[in-house]
Amino acid sequence: MRASVLSDWLAQHLDRGNGQPLYRQLHRLLQQAILSRELPAGSKVPSSRLLAAELGIARNTVTQVYEQLVLEGYVSSATGRGTFVADSAPDEIIGTPDASAAPDAANLPDATRGAPDAALRQALFAPGSARLARSGTPLAPERALSRRGARLVAGAGVSKRQGGAFMPGVPDVTRFPARVWSRLQNKYWRRLRPDLLTYAPGGGQAWLRHVLADYLRTARSVQCAPEQIIITTGIHQSVDLAVRLLSDVGDVIWTEDPCYWGVRSVLQVSGLEVRPVAVDDEGINPGPDDLLQPPKLMLVTPSHQYPLGMVMSLQRRRMLLEYARQHQCWIIEDDYDSEFRYGSRPLASLQGLDSAGQVIYVGSFGKTLFPGLRIGYLVAPAALAERFATASAELYREGQLLQQAMLAEFIAEGHFTSHIRKMRALYGQRRGALLEAVAQRYGTTLPVLGGDAGLHLVLQLPPGADDRAAAAAALERNIVVRALSGYYAEAARAQPGLLLGYACVPDEEIVPAFATLSQALDERLGLG
Amino acid sequence: MRASVLSDWLAQHLDRGNGQPLYRQLHRLLQQAILSRELPAGSKVPSSRLLAAELGIARNTVTQVYEQLVLEGYVSSATGRGTFVADSAPDEIIGTPDASAAPDAANLPDATRGAPDAALRQALFAPGSARLARSGTPLAPERALSRRGARLVAGAGVSKRQGGAFMPGVPDVTRFPARVWSRLQNKYWRRLRPDLLTYAPGGGQAWLRHVLADYLRTARSVQCAPEQIIITTGIHQSVDLAVRLLSDVGDVIWTEDPCYWGVRSVLQVSGLEVRPVAVDDEGINPGPDDLLQPPKLMLVTPSHQYPLGMVMSLQRRRMLLEYARQHQCWIIEDDYDSEFRYGSRPLASLQGLDSAGQVIYVGSFGKTLFPGLRIGYLVAPAALAERFATASAELYREGQLLQQAMLAEFIAEGHFTSHIRKMRALYGQRRGALLEAVAQRYGTTLPVLGGDAGLHLVLQLPPGADDRAAAAAALERNIVVRALSGYYAEAARAQPGLLLGYACVPDEEIVPAFATLSQALDERLGLG
Repeated sequence: MRASVLSDWLAQHLDRGNGQPLYRQLHRLLQQAILSRELPAGSKVPSSRLLAAELGIARNTVTQVYEQLVLEGYVSSATGRGTFVADSAPDEIIGTPDASAAPDAANLPDATRGAPDAALRQALFAPGSARLARSGTPLAPERALSRRGARLVAGAGVSKRQGGAFMPGVPDVTRFPARVWSRLQNKYWRRLRPDLLTYAPGGGQAWLRHVLADYLRTARSVQCAPEQIIITTGIHQSVDLAVRLLSDVGDVIWTEDPCYWGVRSVLQVSGLEVRPVAVDDEGINPGPDDLLQPPKLMLVTPSHQYPLGMVMSLQRRRMLLEYARQHQCWIIEDDYDSEFRYGSRPLASLQGLDSAGQVIYVGSFGKTLFPGLRIGYLVAPAALAERFATASAELYREGQLLQQAMLAEFIAEGHFTSHIRKMRALYGQRRGALLEAVAQRYGTTLPVLGGDAGLHLVLQLPPGADDRAAAAAALERNIVVRALSGYYAEAARAQPGLLLGYACVPDEEIVPAFATLSQALDERLGLG
Repeated sequence: MRASVLSDWLAQHLDRGNGQPLYRQLHRLLQQAILSRELPAGSKVPSSRLLAAELGIARNTVTQVYEQLVLEGYVSSATGRGTFVADSAPDEIIGTPDASAAPDAANLPDATRGAPDAALRQALFAPGSARLARSGTPLAPERALSRRGARLVAGAGVSKRQGGAFMPGVPDVTRFPARVWSRLQNKYWRRLRPDLLTYAPGGGQAWLRHVLADYLRTARSVQCAPEQIIITTGIHQSVDLAVRLLSDVGDVIWTEDPCYWGVRSVLQVSGLEVRPVAVDDEGINPGPDDLLQPPKLMLVTPSHQYPLGMVMSLQRRRMLLEYARQHQCWIIEDDYDSEFRYGSRPLASLQGLDSAGQVIYVGSFGKTLFPGLRIGYLVAPAALAERFATASAELYREGQLLQQAMLAEFIAEGHFTSHIRKMRALYGQRRGALLEAVAQRYGTTLPVLGGDAGLHLVLQLPPGADDRAAAAAALERNIVVRALSGYYAEAARAQPGLLLGYACVPDEEIVPAFATLSQALDERLGLG
């Protein structure tokens, strides 16, 4: 097609009345001409000035279309020489016009190279099937997410804020020993071991698995050999792995009510039927109706119930283990922040009491080091450890071995425990400051839950108070708190309250930030 | 309980005839005594010498049990002073003996603190429910994986080897510009930005999304704004996200047959019904039966069919897009290694031809940089981009922002394209050497597929040849090859062949390694 022929063809097909911008129409038509080889590879396209004049449209429109085509690889422009059709089109290109711009399906050539896709052609163009869209048809209406996708997005609990007073669950990353970490990093990158840059073998880096097994045995009374440790990217992936290996679609899982929103989402998209079970001051407390239908799995936070903060009593642990043993349920123990206890020593893990190989223990370095690290772990029952390792490699194709080896050395050199010790003291101070601020302002009017461990506490609000409104009022003053009621699955159980994270709040900001928060509460809830 | 009373009680309960090792019995009994407060917190336990003498067992057994109890946090030992019961037990501990060691359920005390868990107690100990296990009962029989878990593990394709001649799909990580990377790393860790250490906002680090959108528009003709880019940990996570958001359990997905094993596993555990569709030399080629039941999703590798290596023809692309538009199917375009083409320029992406917002484009830095990096990306349809970002944060709780920012700078400084250029030349040489070795040894007897792009080629074997046996024979000689037939879902379609990866094989090893391989082939298949 010569330049003048092209202009004529374009003029003929541009339709000013169909509501589509000329820019888009011109772009489509030129794509079509190139793809169909009407404009063959290497041929020069008219200058933007000439084409604009011949079509009677703004030159700027043509320039923009050409720029877009360059970006898309349809044409390339050589300074001073003009714009040429790229030769990137492979041999098999034949004259099928771009479907969305095609004048009519009847125009499609019948002769295809050996027509191996005759079935596809027939399905597309058979009577009764929808005809190809005409030029200028608006884009297809937006398609919907799947049911599980829509539910996931609608119920998403994730916040756009990841720090500041009083964001719960976020540690103080400014105190992370960056210099030590950086030194280790340099060491590993200088003497580069290629095997640390490739895919992870099932389970993760061997040294880290070893060091971690020692740590968990000693610090958390977890019964485990290094082979049982599966390195993951965190609690989410650990739970995902356990759930996919141990349950099928439609199986029932008990979660604590309230519980951590993120894990609930992971369970739901895996096709589990989530049954929220009430908690009391000894932890999860299944009622008669729950017990009549034993679940396939339970997910519990025995060391520090999330978000309320109580410790599961030993008696409750035993009963849960025994019930699980009798009914062949799996228990996932989420031990997300048990390193931070102020005053009392951590209680041994539930896994450590289990003699039936029915507990899957999961934890993470997100709170103890920094969230962005994305290293967590799962302790699999010994009998299933190898299968967990294989499944993890198969499903997630993990890597990050260099970072894992570094972390192993960081732990082995004692930096991990010393960092935890420091942070425990620091968070303990902040917690003290916040507790005092609460007591000074509200006395015993607003009781505090879960103050003796973790990275946040729960400020209970009076019955009937609207905690979401309170959180919204706080956010208007740039204070992030989370409404306790949002953590409940069953509205009837929901208690009003606010989660106040203190770990990531600098000492000197705690009192003023709490003062701001209490203004918001006083105004919105008529407290004080 | 005084020490002598303890010894008597232990002597009474140790049962030499029940088949359980004394070590385990003693361990359980001591746990029970501590947990039930028969041995109260802070009390001293008898020395190992004394207890061993009183019980008439080896002192070593007692020492080992004490060490285990120290690890588990039940007791602590102070050098020179003896071993003491730890005070870590919380207040609510009452005299429930360890269930697995309990002589009988009837011995359980009835008085519980307020008995909030009466229902659980009743369920456990009601007539008709299984009785508690007696001391000495062997561990519960190993529990089974779920159906999807068992299927995942049984069908796992992941290899224990991740390098060496001729491992397919693994790039040469020794050539990665470690010095440049290390310099950037130091820069980022010196001027530490706390926001890079915390959780990722939905979608990933902003600069990387921006830089990547530019790259994909230019190099791959992908139509995208930075907001459409979702940073993931790789192809597996990208596919997982798309599938969970766009399909429900039981929905049908078309995959190419043969295809990459890892992605098939991801699809299956998400509850999809995977329907393998034949391919021909123009790509996926659905037959009449396939077309009658439009799938919810299709997963294709248009730039470079995996593992066979052909490019999907433009005609096939258009028809697939049009069929998807008519039947409201989603298309996942897996563009895993299109940067490596030798000779021909890469064909533009399928996503770039789509005007209906129905293509989800996924890619990864695993092949272009190094697999262990675990950074990949997904390009979401514009209308769904924000929901994809939210879902990604909700489901995976990602981090690694510092690494992502570094990578953005690495790309922006031009290191990425220059590395790709170097590696393309290097892999081109290795590919040439391997092709020549094949031609010299086998002439045209064993044709080669997919040799003009990617990191591997396929050596076809004569019809009926047992390619798995050939791969096993090669492995005995320490040569890793993968049997082509293993990539097929339908045995009737499976062609025998071997995938030979050349990218991670040093130049000088290619010829000798191929000679070793051909010996194995000659012996096993009677070739030559």
